[in-house]
Amino acid sequence: MKMATPQIKVNFASNNPHKIIEVKEILESFGIKVNPLKSKVREIQSNSLEEIAADSARITAQATCKSIVVEDAGLFIKVLGGFPGPYSSYVYDTIGCSGILKLMERVAKRTATFRSAVSYCEANREPKVFIGETEGKISLTEKGGRRFGYDPIFIPDELDGRAFSELSVREKNKISHRSRAFNKLANWLLRADKQA
Amino acid sequence: MKMATPQIKVNFASNNPHKIIEVKEILESFGIKVNPLKSKVREIQSNSLEEIAADSARITAQATCKSIVVEDAGLFIKVLGGFPGPYSSYVYDTIGCSGILKLMERVAKRTATFRSAVSYCEANREPKVFIGETEGKISLTEKGGRRFGYDPIFIPDELDGRAFSELSVREKNKISHRSRAFNKLANWLLRADKQA
Repeated sequence: MKMATPQIKVNFASNNPHKIIEVKEILESFGIKVNPLKSKVREIQSNSLEEIAADSARITAQATCKSIVVEDAGLFIKVLGGFPGPYSSYVYDTIGCSGILKLMERVAKRTATFRSAVSYCEANREPKVFIGETEGKISLTEKGGRRFGYDPIFIPDELDGRAFSELSVREKNKISHRSRAFNKLANWLLRADKQA
Repeated sequence: MKMATPQIKVNFASNNPHKIIEVKEILESFGIKVNPLKSKVREIQSNSLEEIAADSARITAQATCKSIVVEDAGLFIKVLGGFPGPYSSYVYDTIGCSGILKLMERVAKRTATFRSAVSYCEANREPKVFIGETEGKISLTEKGGRRFGYDPIFIPDELDGRAFSELSVREKNKISHRSRAFNKLANWLLRADKQA
């Protein structure tokens, strides 16, 4: 008699509905089910996304006694010394895309990197971290489309000059920092599952 | 025979030499000795200076088994939704005073508040927090003098139009957010000492 393989399921702690949509699309393409959980953890202050994500995953896994996935992402603008970086979310809530564009007025060098750190942790274990990056430029004006974070002002180098906001979720997931990090997680989970 | 009162001494955890100079001047005027300690704690991410300071004081007191004083300060610019606020230090290290001035280009409403949260905690006790505030305006250009944080671009309302950077330590301590919070701490310590 052949046993049906139980589907892999991950508990994804996030309060951001845009993120949850993207992550579901990515992980479900690997046959991995996503169970969104409200995130209640207080993030640490650090210049390292890896540290922030790993710390949040460890604390949430311990508090819930579940395997937990968390993601921390940031936009690192080279000429601004990496700003807004690990504090992208707070900066977005205060000065927003328009503040970033004002800081970039009269600035020719517009290189920026979107980074994602995805951490997976089981209760009482050490967290694993997977990194994804996408290189691009800060646009001169805000572009239309989906208004998710800095997507309206980030133009990935790999495409045709459209901003992240102007791509469908599926298009964005082909090249985004988030999908690159979650792809690594998915492959690791599938390997771990086969070995089990 | 009369016993000499032992001098009150506080352990002040900070890695900022400017801060240590100001705090020594304030507390020593109350006869309180300041013992600077290197701060090793990882601050939490929070929009509340009070929470950040209290958390740091609690953790440091527990780790060192000493009574600890920590301070967290921030510049809250009204028109920028409170930015840079609790992340003033990271924002200073990346975009600096010039970044703030650029964000404030063509902005008429320049009201800002400097806030200080001072926390005192004994090992295995709950932390106490004291708040100090100074109202002012963001200057149009960077002013000269002492280059400590945002002092070159903050003009307190109570004085003659000089920026914080253009004041001596003693002048600044008469009106600064930090001195107001530390004055409250000093008075509390002296009362607690009398009652002991």
